[in-house]
Amino acid sequence: MKNLAYYNGRIEEASKMMVPAEDRAFYFGDGVYDVTTVHNGKCFAIDDHVSRFYGNCKKLRLNLGMTMDELKKICLDLVTKLDPEVKEAVLYFQASRGTAPRNHAFPENAKANLFFTLKEAKIKPIGQKVSAITKEDIRFEMCDIKTLNLLFNCLAQQEAKEAGCYEAILHRGERVTEGSHSGVSILRDGRFITPPLDRFILPSVTRKHYIELCTGLGIRVEERPFTLEELFAADEVIIMSSTAVCNVCEKIDGRPVGGKAPELVEALCGAYKEKIFAETGMQY
Amino acid sequence: MKNLAYYNGRIEEASKMMVPAEDRAFYFGDGVYDVTTVHNGKCFAIDDHVSRFYGNCKKLRLNLGMTMDELKKICLDLVTKLDPEVKEAVLYFQASRGTAPRNHAFPENAKANLFFTLKEAKIKPIGQKVSAITKEDIRFEMCDIKTLNLLFNCLAQQEAKEAGCYEAILHRGERVTEGSHSGVSILRDGRFITPPLDRFILPSVTRKHYIELCTGLGIRVEERPFTLEELFAADEVIIMSSTAVCNVCEKIDGRPVGGKAPELVEALCGAYKEKIFAETGMQY
Repeated sequence: MKNLAYYNGRIEEASKMMVPAEDRAFYFGDGVYDVTTVHNGKCFAIDDHVSRFYGNCKKLRLNLGMTMDELKKICLDLVTKLDPEVKEAVLYFQASRGTAPRNHAFPENAKANLFFTLKEAKIKPIGQKVSAITKEDIRFEMCDIKTLNLLFNCLAQQEAKEAGCYEAILHRGERVTEGSHSGVSILRDGRFITPPLDRFILPSVTRKHYIELCTGLGIRVEERPFTLEELFAADEVIIMSSTAVCNVCEKIDGRPVGGKAPELVEALCGAYKEKIFAETGMQY
Repeated sequence: MKNLAYYNGRIEEASKMMVPAEDRAFYFGDGVYDVTTVHNGKCFAIDDHVSRFYGNCKKLRLNLGMTMDELKKICLDLVTKLDPEVKEAVLYFQASRGTAPRNHAFPENAKANLFFTLKEAKIKPIGQKVSAITKEDIRFEMCDIKTLNLLFNCLAQQEAKEAGCYEAILHRGERVTEGSHSGVSILRDGRFITPPLDRFILPSVTRKHYIELCTGLGIRVEERPFTLEELFAADEVIIMSSTAVCNVCEKIDGRPVGGKAPELVEALCGAYKEKIFAETGMQY
């Protein structure tokens, strides 16, 4: 199959997968998710994603009823079900707090539901130029957990799309947090500046990789809040996610931004491509 | 049937209802819901609930593809499917922004999904005594829309349950907002004090009824923010929802509260019972 879904062991074509209406994801968004990419039949950064997902389940006291290794094995087995001619795919995983009649409190003895999709998808060109809007971030203060409560993210992304942009960069007052479906970091005076890991941003796996790559390249990393003013004045603005590891932002709210450190961007993109190649054998 | 579910025209026993995994409620909680009660085969306050639900869809640009009257007709038809011996039931309605492969931006041309459950359920005794905990409210600032992003509400309600309490009363700093699944109002010096309708609270239908009943009973109504201090010092604390219209709170965080205006509570409970009787013929 080119697009498949898994639900508690059952595998079907993704668009045909049916799930119980009483899955708590459906009523409450009571669950977590994660996303990674598959290249040449190999999951990229699978340990990072499985471990974040597993950790998020724990934070929400959502008991998966399996070890992290068992979870990883399900991911890897699933990838073997993909048509061999599919070179690039996206693996989405989701867990919810079981199936039970609707009631806010946790169901007694309900088993977590585990859901995956694995779909053919071209990975976004590394280093592609994009534009963005800014938007006040009014999400709940649990943004460090990758939960299924994504309504505001959807509304923000739709607003960006209608403005002809790739992303909505969110901010709480002056402080930039992250994008509606990406992380945001800036380059300034040769330094990589990225928000600290608090309750306002997701601990992005891609951000973690950037920090490692910067270290390898001798680029100084600053983990600290930065402002909208710093965003607009940055040498470069990088919008990152697992499925689009490096988007170089050249316009925000219609104003030109970045473009002042292309050699640094190139070095980072090159290092990221090498990392993907080293892990999966896929050349970008 | 005693418990049934409806999904885009299909009707099944609730626990057996299956829905597409690609319904956006499942991935994003991209939808809204509402709840009302059914007594003697008659929906209580159906116009209030249908109109709030319809309005919430509009706020989220979620096009139901039908008029409010058509929506109401589906509700009323559904109630006729209930076993006649079921005297009390809860009607839950939910709409999501259609079914489509996962993508934050709105799907093009996707039809909204309409989902209901109708389940036998005893309505909570009007005037029952309950206890509560307090908890900092860190939800997103769209609490005026009854959305499916309810993870924090679930966590708060579970915390209340584990403390042996009925509800978690949420507050933003000093200001009391609402409960995890209820509204909260207080009585003080003969006045009914209830939070104003802003982005921090849901425009509760039950609250609206209280305001009408207070007017009828000559009780002064103050729509204004009130503090935790006022909550603890109140003559009475009333926790209200459609399925439990009057819970009289007698303990919060282990401290006794209220109990100083039982005659006012009795008058309000009496008036509420009369309202239900007038609409449905059901005597409480």
